[in-house]
Parts: sequence; structure tokens; C-alpha cells
Amino acid sequence: MTGKELREALRAGRRVYGTMIVSPSPRWLEVIEQLNIDFVFIDTEHIAIDRHQLSWMCHGYSGKGIAPVVRIPAPDPYQACMAMDAGAKGIVAPYIETVEEVQQLRGAVKTRPIKGKKLFDFLNGSKPFEPDLERYIEKNNQNHVLIINIESQASLDNLDELVRVPGLDAVLIGPHDLSCNLGVPEQYDHPVFKKAVEKILMTARKAGVGAGIHVFYNESVKWEIEWAAKGANLILHSGDINRFAQVVHDDISTLSKALDGQSGSEAKEVNI
Amino acid sequence: MTGKELREALRAGRRVYGTMIVSPSPRWLEVIEQLNIDFVFIDTEHIAIDRHQLSWMCHGYSGKGIAPVVRIPAPDPYQACMAMDAGAKGIVAPYIETVEEVQQLRGAVKTRPIKGKKLFDFLNGSKPFEPDLERYIEKNNQNHVLIINIESQASLDNLDELVRVPGLDAVLIGPHDLSCNLGVPEQYDHPVFKKAVEKILMTARKAGVGAGIHVFYNESVKWEIEWAAKGANLILHSGDINRFAQVVHDDISTLSKALDGQSGSEAKEVNI
Amino acid sequence: MTGKELREALRAGRRVYGTMIVSPSPRWLEVIEQLNIDFVFIDTEHIAIDRHQLSWMCHGYSGKGIAPVVRIPAPDPYQACMAMDAGAKGIVAPYIETVEEVQQLRGAVKTRPIKGKKLFDFLNGSKPFEPDLERYIEKNNQNHVLIINIESQASLDNLDELVRVPGLDAVLIGPHDLSCNLGVPEQYDHPVFKKAVEKILMTARKAGVGAGIHVFYNESVKWEIEWAAKGANLILHSGDINRFAQVVHDDISTLSKALDGQSGSEAKEVNI
Amino acid sequence: MTGKELREALRAGRRVYGTMIVSPSPRWLEVIEQLNIDFVFIDTEHIAIDRHQLSWMCHGYSGKGIAPVVRIPAPDPYQACMAMDAGAKGIVAPYIETVEEVQQLRGAVKTRPIKGKKLFDFLNGSKPFEPDLERYIEKNNQNHVLIINIESQASLDNLDELVRVPGLDAVLIGPHDLSCNLGVPEQYDHPVFKKAVEKILMTARKAGVGAGIHVFYNESVKWEIEWAAKGANLILHSGDINRFAQVVHDDISTLSKALDGQSGSEAKEVNI
Amino acid sequence: MTGKELREALRAGRRVYGTMIVSPSPRWLEVIEQLNIDFVFIDTEHIAIDRHQLSWMCHGYSGKGIAPVVRIPAPDPYQACMAMDAGAKGIVAPYIETVEEVQQLRGAVKTRPIKGKKLFDFLNGSKPFEPDLERYIEKNNQNHVLIINIESQASLDNLDELVRVPGLDAVLIGPHDLSCNLGVPEQYDHPVFKKAVEKILMTARKAGVGAGIHVFYNESVKWEIEWAAKGANLILHSGDINRFAQVVHDDISTLSKALDGQSGSEAKEVNI
Amino acid sequence: MTGKELREALRAGRRVYGTMIVSPSPRWLEVIEQLNIDFVFIDTEHIAIDRHQLSWMCHGYSGKGIAPVVRIPAPDPYQACMAMDAGAKGIVAPYIETVEEVQQLRGAVKTRPIKGKKLFDFLNGSKPFEPDLERYIEKNNQNHVLIINIESQASLDNLDELVRVPGLDAVLIGPHDLSCNLGVPEQYDHPVFKKAVEKILMTARKAGVGAGIHVFYNESVKWEIEWAAKGANLILHSGDINRFAQVVHDDISTLSKALDGQSGSEAKEVNI
Repeated sequence: MTGKELREALRAGRRVYGTMIVSPSPRWLEVIEQLNIDFVFIDTEHIAIDRHQLSWMCHGYSGKGIAPVVRIPAPDPYQACMAMDAGAKGIVAPYIETVEEVQQLRGAVKTRPIKGKKLFDFLNGSKPFEPDLERYIEKNNQNHVLIINIESQASLDNLDELVRVPGLDAVLIGPHDLSCNLGVPEQYDHPVFKKAVEKILMTARKAGVGAGIHVFYNESVKWEIEWAAKGANLILHSGDINRFAQVVHDDISTLSKALDGQSGSEAKEVNI
Repeated sequence: MTGKELREALRAGRRVYGTMIVSPSPRWLEVIEQLNIDFVFIDTEHIAIDRHQLSWMCHGYSGKGIAPVVRIPAPDPYQACMAMDAGAKGIVAPYIETVEEVQQLRGAVKTRPIKGKKLFDFLNGSKPFEPDLERYIEKNNQNHVLIINIESQASLDNLDELVRVPGLDAVLIGPHDLSCNLGVPEQYDHPVFKKAVEKILMTARKAGVGAGIHVFYNESVKWEIEWAAKGANLILHSGDINRFAQVVHDDISTLSKALDGQSGSEAKEVNI
Repeated sequence: MTGKELREALRAGRRVYGTMIVSPSPRWLEVIEQLNIDFVFIDTEHIAIDRHQLSWMCHGYSGKGIAPVVRIPAPDPYQACMAMDAGAKGIVAPYIETVEEVQQLRGAVKTRPIKGKKLFDFLNGSKPFEPDLERYIEKNNQNHVLIINIESQASLDNLDELVRVPGLDAVLIGPHDLSCNLGVPEQYDHPVFKKAVEKILMTARKAGVGAGIHVFYNESVKWEIEWAAKGANLILHSGDINRFAQVVHDDISTLSKALDGQSGSEAKEVNI
Repeated sequence: MTGKELREALRAGRRVYGTMIVSPSPRWLEVIEQLNIDFVFIDTEHIAIDRHQLSWMCHGYSGKGIAPVVRIPAPDPYQACMAMDAGAKGIVAPYIETVEEVQQLRGAVKTRPIKGKKLFDFLNGSKPFEPDLERYIEKNNQNHVLIINIESQASLDNLDELVRVPGLDAVLIGPHDLSCNLGVPEQYDHPVFKKAVEKILMTARKAGVGAGIHVFYNESVKWEIEWAAKGANLILHSGDINRFAQVVHDDISTLSKALDGQSGSEAKEVNI
Repeated sequence: MTGKELREALRAGRRVYGTMIVSPSPRWLEVIEQLNIDFVFIDTEHIAIDRHQLSWMCHGYSGKGIAPVVRIPAPDPYQACMAMDAGAKGIVAPYIETVEEVQQLRGAVKTRPIKGKKLFDFLNGSKPFEPDLERYIEKNNQNHVLIINIESQASLDNLDELVRVPGLDAVLIGPHDLSCNLGVPEQYDHPVFKKAVEKILMTARKAGVGAGIHVFYNESVKWEIEWAAKGANLILHSGDINRFAQVVHDDISTLSKALDGQSGSEAKEVNI
Repeated sequence: MTGKELREALRAGRRVYGTMIVSPSPRWLEVIEQLNIDFVFIDTEHIAIDRHQLSWMCHGYSGKGIAPVVRIPAPDPYQACMAMDAGAKGIVAPYIETVEEVQQLRGAVKTRPIKGKKLFDFLNGSKPFEPDLERYIEKNNQNHVLIINIESQASLDNLDELVRVPGLDAVLIGPHDLSCNLGVPEQYDHPVFKKAVEKILMTARKAGVGAGIHVFYNESVKWEIEWAAKGANLILHSGDINRFAQVVHDDISTLSKALDGQSGSEAKEVNI
């Protein structure tokens, strides 16, 4: 998908499929095509990937027709610009709780290259852009997708306003941080957690904005089907490191049990 | 495992477990411990990993108590030295067919730092090392493991002599190349292929040398159990890129089928 | 040029010549000497160059007697410090609109290593440095050049005060952002744009501060001569990627027209 | 040492030994074990080390049983998170002057992954964490060490409150910046400087917090013994680049004097 | 172009257009599309580009529909394999003089993954592949292009046989090395040089093999038109570093002459 | 020193001073000037430094007026070319034992870019170069320095002929390998070892070729003075990693003894 296709699908409520890519290996490109996915999620908040490397990854996945969606380390408009300059089509901003944060990111992602006072005046509605500039900006930002992470009670409390900020394309639940923020750390089947997820998905979708949750923990497919039924259309399925860790752990356990009669320890989740 | 422990286990016929690591991400280190493996296989023949990066990977995995085993691009003793200088504990040399090749690699891996004429005289048995030097070399090379790839009919034909070269610790079947060389490309259940595998495993083990096959294609666990029954004790189970590609392909297929009623294409194998 | 020479030339109104370098190839160093330039402009705002790489580039160009001038991603004094620690002689801060921003950058670039409250007191004039410290700071920052990007109407409106901040060495017009901010995107011969450029150049030069505009679009030489006539003395001529793209596009068009009778499409500009 | 051991030693007043590592060479790992140190200090404020490289360094040193302590470029909680995600056990934040800064860093280092409003409420004492969450956070942050740089008079003035912020494990004097801030640049034996150092060490240790000073200039061992007598228990001894520069300079001087009768120039210090 | 399209065009005598890319910047990808070229030439013989970087470049350019053609450092079949594993579609082998060298490269590029004795028997015609294997190899190598550098009198002397080796797709003249080898260094309009070029182009084309010359020196377009008239259909036009160096040199000369009345020195060529 | 100055000094018997640099940190450049050295030795045989990094290091040190001398992994003329293309001024080839090896390296280092048959004919004296070419080659290779490692008895036995190969500029003893080869591993004060060193130094100097030994073990200055008295004029003093390891080990021992009454273990040498 191009950025534009991803943006339009998210808004229209069509399901889009993706996975997280942690590995910077160019060899990953050779297997990506057969995965039948629309986007990849590259997390520069928690994963130590540098700009030059990130840029090659973004261009590489784009060249395969897969939209690179990049989480930036902080909800900082300058970081959003740097990621898009590197080739990101979508930006995920972590731990968003206020309309102001979304507005600033909207400025970076959707009204490039306007900054400073003119952007401030535009965002608060006091001064529209000149028609020439408006057309220019619309054309030049049509492939940019803005996604915010919903990971806290405060975010839930403000959700109605957050999803109404123009230019927002989707919300993405960070389950690990959300579960902690709700006081039920890593208890992904806790009623408090599940109720929050449902509310987020519903609120976003009702507002014409895409919605999803990054399920990287066990039984991810089962959970993803459940959440899709509740409205998730941004299907972000686990990730290379998670599935590798889970599956090879199980494989080796099976092997060593069959061959040596040993059963290994439980695998721990990789929290992202 | 240290290099020494890996070497001794291979020789003694004890099973050792490992997987291939293609990703140069430092995050992999955080999941490696829970995999319950003894070594990782890093393939610099087919995978574009540079020396500096390789060196950090080798030291990183060693620091976790997991022996880094590195396949070099060509059966070249200088490349074996470079890999060991980078931190490799084990060396896998590709496509070995002659005793001369094994001898040269033995020189690099087991009699470091002797080279040139003195090494030549030693290897052909014409001139032993001085006692001081012999002790020094034994001590300084005790953590170095020498493994050769068996991937051809010519190799099979010479196998009896190959496995008798002192210092050889194990043979590792490269199934993709071997199947091609035998004229049955990627037909891993072809009788010609299976018979060859059996013979290689048996011959090596009989000579007191470890043996294994890198099973990266589908149903790897099943095959590995079968080959272990035939003598494989160097259990090299698939790899990060293979298992990720296979499993995420299946996950996404399950998801899109459940959600959108679509069934995707078949996944292709990643040949290493 | 050293940083000091560049700073003094800018202030004294002498013309200095440079070009933008996007490529991190060390081979560029071998052609840089014959270009007869005084500085290179390395843009880490829009170009994905990492710190380690940037540092080698800065030291490499310095070693050739060419001052590395680095644009930082955001007008952040910490980023200015990081670039100078990496070897930058000049700092370009993007999209500056207020005196406060210039003061903070001045603190980073010209009064290193003072930070925090003491810097605050110094910058607002409430507390001068001790004589020992003053001498130390003057000596240790003599090779540091501070340049700000003028890219907006708000910046124009504040220009008289901006150029009076002590320690500012030059203003550099970012034509792409400025044209957008003025509502005439990429219309570099629009009267509104041209009038703004003239006013910026004149205001800066009158205040004893260097002035320039980064002309990376077509007919750059013609424009640069025109702007030099209006006062530009910081001559930042296009860049490697721009001239390569423009010229090879034209070359291939000429070739394919001569050989195959085809005429290709128009080249698009690379906006920086 | 693990992060936990380092944290507990600092708090208990036991001496811990470390050195600064500037070089990103993996070969350094091979010599680190014989140095008999507890931690390494990696300075990403002044040294151009990228995230991917930093992460391999942190994991590499951790694998050797040596705690990686990373100075971040700015006192920014997001940067602290990035460094810990990369594998840092300890965080050093530069130029801290206020309780608010320490609180924010405490949030990043000691109450991960809580952020936003919930963290704000927790830090100002208005709302404790749920018991489940409290246990979770304590367990997951037990290896994280928080150290702040004391480098200014303002910091000294606020020291009593700074050291009382819960979660702070140690203070580290940056002698270069402190001497400049005190108006006696690089005069490390000036009474003003020495008095300040004494006060910082004493205040921190009295509050049950570790204390140290990074002595990278000449006669470092002598000074470190002196400062240890005054209470320093975080012994950060010089660094690779400093000792290399000092010693090889002296070696070459000795050599060229003995061989050619020449005496070279004085070595300058590397200020960090 | 895919590798297959490039191979077929070269063989059929259709003109293909390309340029050399020295810069590893991902930003280059954004301008490559407008150049209207079919392939890029990446020279790892003379340019210090590492494997990981090369692999991203190859995949990046392939993703844009432009075939990456890589010159390997030495005429070594292992290096050809490494470049193709990294994503190269075409291989250029330097300084080829004998049929044996071409045969070995043919083995690496066109009969992957067969090596060792079986390859030897196949190449010397003593033993054809099994039908299954033949089909497999043809399919798996259809995108691989083999090009040899003709750069010496010895090569000219053997040209008739060289171009008859099955699997060879094109010859590429290295003008710098050829001019030196012919005793007329850098005299690209010397009759001896021109006569040699003509003969090479004609001989290759007559044999149904593509032919070209890498013109990186001045007046490249003029020369390329001339050589195309003599049969060159592999049009390798200069390179990023060459055109950048030539054009920016001229631009700065024009500028400084217009502004300061100075005329700079002559630009030297970048020999590749 | 330029390459030419280094070459001429070595030949003329003037002493030149250098040290080994293992660290790829750009910060090293800032301390290198004060060391008063003429060259740096960068060992790509044993140290995992990649081409791109090596190239920046070579250009960086050259920019400081210090000649980069690079040891290649194997005595392979292609590797010598790659190092010189990366910016090396001097080439050290490891473990040289025969005239043929020196001749091939001479071809790569001193008669660039001639290769293949023409080079073969030139080296064996059967066919001189054309006068134009001879001048061209002399001019273009005047900054290239050829040094061979003498590390074995076989090398000693052939030394008279080795040092007579035209174009050889110096011999460099690798003490670790030589001591092993002589059967007295790491016994650098063993009479057998010392006698060999003396003979090598004398033989080389008599032939008008520079001579040296890389003393990286303890008491290096003392030994270097002794060897200089015996004729060493290529003074390669230890290295960053060696001196750092030795000195910080001693510093920490002193510290912990003074503070905690503990005495640490002995430091082991870093063998290069």
C-alpha cells in the first residue's frame, strides 16, 4: 500500500494488515512479499534503529509496496518530520493524552513544511492558508498517515476530543503500557483492560478514524480476531522478534523433549 | 556453551542445540536466553553481515553463554582467522570436498597463529611443533570448533578421509546445496537425498566427529527428530528469518481468512 | 577555512562559497579540494545522517581545510552541542522566529560549556562572567559559527531584533520553506518571495551579519549572482544530490534523444 | 555488577570502580575483564555514538558482568528511556539543577513504563500506584540506576533537595563544567573548586546517596584517592581516550628524546 | 528493469542506460526515478561500500525498478555469490583476460548453487546437469547478468574466445585501466585507445553479447554518442561523484569569476 | 607525513614514529595531533574494521598530516588495492615468506593500475612499461608505501632476497607470530627471538630498506630503544588498546589497593 491507500483504508474502516519489524536485515525484504501484508511497523521508540538504517528500511519496504509506519521516540513534531524525511509513510506517536499533542503532530505530518507562528495560527483556526499553499500542502502530504498511541486512562478520558482532531487517521492501542497505566500490568484478559480496549476501538471507529491494538503476546491471532469483531481495522500482528522467540522456544522444547526427555522453561513475552 | 564445551559435546556424541540468527538487532540478545540453546549459527556466506557487526554479535552471544558459530563465505583459512578474531567460537566452511581444504582450515582454526611453511610442514606431518609451542597452541585454540559443510556428491565420495583429518569437530549438511548437487533440488524427502544424509551422519559419527543438518524448511522439527535418530547430534534448527516468515505467513492467512474470508498464497522457503 | 575564518568573513561581508553535501561517501573528500570552496553544508534536519557518520564527515572536511556547517534538526541548544562535539564548526538552526531561540543557540554555540541558571543570567544580561571564564570561553568558542535559518513571515517581522543578538554570525534563507510560508510555494521568482529575500539580505548585512540563501533549484548560478548583488555573501550553492539529479537527467535525455529519438520527462527539484 | 548491585553499592556507601569507554571497538571487550572494574561509563552527551552501536556496547559489557552506565545528551526522560531500552543499566543526566528535572528522570528510570498524567500524579504524591502495579514496577526497575551530574553553583545551591528525591542513586561531579561554572575553568586545585567538590560529596553521602567525580585530567589516581577520602564512592577513573592520549604522548616523548634528543610539546587534556 | 530484462536487452542489442552510484545515501533513491535509467552501477572494487550497505542499496534500487549491477573487487566467484546474495542483479568482474576466469564467474552467476567438482565437470562439458536440476538452475538464475571488464591488451588478444563463453551477457570497457594498459594513460582520444575500443565493441556485439564503455571523463555525452555509433549498447554514463565534481567545480568557477573576478584551477577527473 | 615522506624516510634510515589505532572513534582524531607521530597503524588483519569505516579513518588521519598505514588481512594484491582506494598510504602485508608474494604486492602498491599479463611481464623483467606509462605510474604511486611483515623462520631464511625486491620500503616484525614460529611463544627476551630480530633489522637496513618491530607488550619503550640501537627506524609503538589496558589496569590496582587494600590480578597482554 502507498501511504495514501493506507490512510484511506483506515478512514473508510477497511481492514489493513501489518506486522512489526525489529530486524534491520535487508534479507527480511525477501520474505516480506509473501506475508500478504499492507504495512510494517518499525518502532524507534523502544528499538535502537538509527536514522540512516531506518531510511533504507523505509525505502526498502516502500519499494515492495508495503507502507512503512514508524513509531517515533517521543510525541515530538520534529521527530515526526525526521521520520518522514527518512521515508516513513505513517507516524505513530507514543503515549498521547492531549489535543495539543495531536495538533502539533498534525502540523508536522499533514501541513508540512509549515511551522512556527503560521502553523500555530492555522492549527488554532485563526488564519487559513492561502489557496495556492493549501493545494500545495494537500498534494505534498497526501501520503502521510498520522496514528496516535492510546496507552493510558488520561487518554481514554480525552478520547472523544482526540479523535476529532482533523488529520488524525487512526488510534493504536499499546497494550503493555495501557495495562500498566490501568493498574493491571500485562493482564490482557482483565475486564478493566478489555473494557478499555473496546471503548477505544468503538470511539475511534465511530469518529471515522481507524483503530487497532498491537497484539504481540501469546495467542495473538485469537485476540486479534476478537478485537476485529469489536471494531479494530488496523491489524498490527505481533512482530518478527516476538514470533521468532515464541516459536523457536516451542520448537526447541519439542525437540529436546523428544530427543532428551527434557522440558524447558516457559518463554517470557517481549514487551514493546 | 563455551567453544570448548561445544567441541567436546560434538566429539562425544552429545546433542547440542542451536538456531540460525540472521538479524543483527541487539534486541535478539534479550530473547536468546529463553530459547534454551547452546549455540547460534551466523551465516556470513549468504547473509550480508559486516565484520564490525559480526564481532559485536559474536561477543554478545558469547556473553549470554551461547557459542557463536560462523559460516565463512569461502573455505579460506584467512577468512576463518578473521571470523575468530571477531569472536567466533566455531567456524563452518562451505562446500568442502577435499582433504587439502580441511587441512588448511585446521591450520587456521586449530594451530593458530602458525602459518606459511612451518604450518605446511606440520600439517603434512613432516615436522612437529616444539613442545613449548605445542602446549601454547593447544591452550590458545581449545575454544575453537571446526565444522565443515557437506553439500555435494564429491564430498560424500571423500567423506571417509575428510572425517579423519585431526581437528575436525563436526560435519554439517547444507540441505539446499546438497539436494541440488545430487540432482534433486529442494526435494528433501527424495530417497537419493535421504540416503545421502544418512550416510553422512553415520560416517561422521562413526569417526568420532559430530554431525548435523540445517533444517530450515517446513516441518523442521519432525525432520530433525528423524535425523537425530539417524545420528545427528549437531541440531541446527531453522532460523529467525525462516520461522518468522513461515509463522507470520500462516498467522496472517488465518487472520485474513477469519476476518475477510480470503486465503493467501503459499509461503516460499528461504534457502540458506 | 577554519571556523574562525568563516565567522570573520561572514561578519566582514566577504563572500564565502560552499555547497551542500548529502552523500556520506568518503570518496567525496577526494573531489572536494578542487571545488575551491570554503565550507560544506551538511543538513541533518532533512537528511538521515547519524552522529558517528556526521563526526567523521566533519573531521574529514575540516582536515581538507573546509569548514563543516551543520544544520541541526530542531532549534535546540542540546542538538547544537552534539553537532559541535561531533566536529561541526558552524551551526545552522532551522526556522528561527524569536529572539529567545537565538539567545538559547548563542548560549550553546558561543558560551560553551556554560548552561543552566548561570547561562540564563548571562544571556539576559543580569550577571557577566568572571574575567577568567570570559577569556576561557572566548578562546574555546572562537571557531564556532552561529547561523540561523530565516524561513517565515514571522521571522521577517522580527528580523531587526534577531540580527542584533550578539554572537549571531549570519542568516541563511531556506527558500523552499520561506516560499511556502509566504503563500507562494516554490515560486522563487514571485515578487513576494523576491522582496522578502532582498529585505532579509539587506537587514542582516546592515547589522554586520552575514547573509545568504541556499539556491538548490534550477538556474542556481544565475540566481546566486543576482542575490549576491543584493547583498548575499554566504554563497551556498546547490548540493551534490541536486546537481547530480539535474545534470544526469539532462545528460540521459540528451543521450536517449540522440540515440533513440526519445525525450524524457522533466526533472523535479529536490527540496531541502 | 548488575544494575541492582551497582545501585545497592552506591546507596550503601561501598566503593564501585569504573572507567569511561569512548571507543566503540568490540575488541575493548577482550581487555575489560582484566581491569577489575564494576561499571563502564559511556558518554553519549559529548561522544558521537549511535543507538544501534550503543545497544551492542551495553549488551556486550553487561555480558561481561560490567554495568553499562550511559550519560544521555540532555536531561530528557525520553532519552533516558531510549538508553535503557538499548541496554543501559545506569543513566547519568547532565547539568541537573532542579528537583523537577530529577523527578522527571526518576519517572523515566524508576517507574517505567508509566508516563503522562498518571506519572505526574504519582511523582507529586497525589496518587499512589495500585498495589499490583507497584510490585510490577519495583520488580521491573530494580536494575535501573539513576545518577545526576552536578556541574554548577545552582546545583550546589539546591543540592539538599536534589539528593532527597526518592530513586536518586548517586551524584556525579562533572569537573570540567563545574570548574567553568564556578569561574575557575580547568583549575582543578583551586580552593573554590575543591570546596565545592567536598560539599557535594559530603551532602550526597549524608543523604544515603552515592557520590563521585570523573577525574580524567592528569594525576587522576592521586586526586581520586583524595576525593575518596572525602566521601567519593563512585570511582569513575579517567577513560580510554584520556589515558591513551596521556600515556602514548609521554611514551613517544621519552622515545624521541632518547633516540633523537628531541622533547615534544605538552599534552593537552581531553575535556569530557 | 529486472535482471532478466537487462540480460535480454544486452543480448538483443537494445540500448540500456545507467549511471554509476557512489553515494550510499538513501536520499539518492528519491531522485533516481526521474533519471529515466535502466540500471545503476555500484563499484565495490574501488569504492568502500560494505556488504550490509550494498545489500540495502541493491534492494532499494530494485524496488524502484532499476537493476543494480555490482562490480566485485576481484574476479572471484565467491565474491560474485556474495554480491548476488546481497541483491545484485548484474555482476561486473574486473580485468578479465582468460576464458578460465569467465568460466568460473559463469559458474557463480549462472549455475548457482552448484560448486566444486560437479561445477567443474559441467563447465568443461564433461557432464551435463540432470534435467530437474537444469530447469531449476535456469529458473533460479534467470535474473542474473554476467558482465566482464575488458581493460587490457591481453584481454583484447583473447576477446574472440572470451565472448563465446556461454552465459556471458556483456563486456564493459574500463577506459582508465585500458588506456594505461595500452601505454597511453588517460589519453582517451589517442588512436591506439580508440581503435581498441572499437574492436572490443564490434567483437562483442558480433558475438551476440552486449558491449559498453564507462565514460566518466569530460564530454562524456559526446563520447557516448560516438561509441554508441560504433556498437555500444550498454550505456554507462559517468556517475554521481564525477558529474557532481565536474559541474559544481564549473558552477563555483563561474560564480567566483562573476562575483570576485577570480578564475579557479582546472578540475581533475575522478578515475574509477 | 605524506606517504611520500614516509617512504623516503624509511629508505633513508630516518626514524619515523607511530602507534596502532584500534578504535574507530572519530574522537581519536582530536588527540592524535598532540602525540607527535608520523603515522598510524590500522590492522585490518586482526581487528574487525569495515571498509567504509576504514576509509574515513584513513582520510581523517591523512587530514591531520599523519600517514595511515593499513595491514591487510592476507598477502593479497586485491586487498592492497582496496585499502589504497580507501585512503591508505602504506600497506603492511602479513606473514610474507617468498619473493613471489612481495612481487605481487609490489604490483598492487607500486605499479597501479597495471594488472594481469602486462604486470606479470613487467615484474619478471621481460617487458618494461612504455615511457609515458612509466612516468604516469611513478607519479601516481609516489605516495604508496609497501611494508611486509616478517614473522617466521622461512621469512628469515629468504630475507636477503625479499629485501631486494624493488619497491619494498620496509620490513616490520610481528613479534607475536615470530616468537611462535620460532618455537618460543611470547618469550620476547629469549635469545632465539632476539637474535632473529637483530638479523632482520640489520639485513633490511643494509639493503636500504626501513625496519621495525611492533612492540605492544610490557616495557615497550625500553625495548623500542634497544631495537632502535640495533637498526629499527620504523618505530611502531604499542597501540591504543594495549596502552589503555595496561595503564588502566595499573591505575585501578593502585586505587583499589590504596582505598580497599586489595591487589588485583596481573594484566594479560593483548596480542596483535
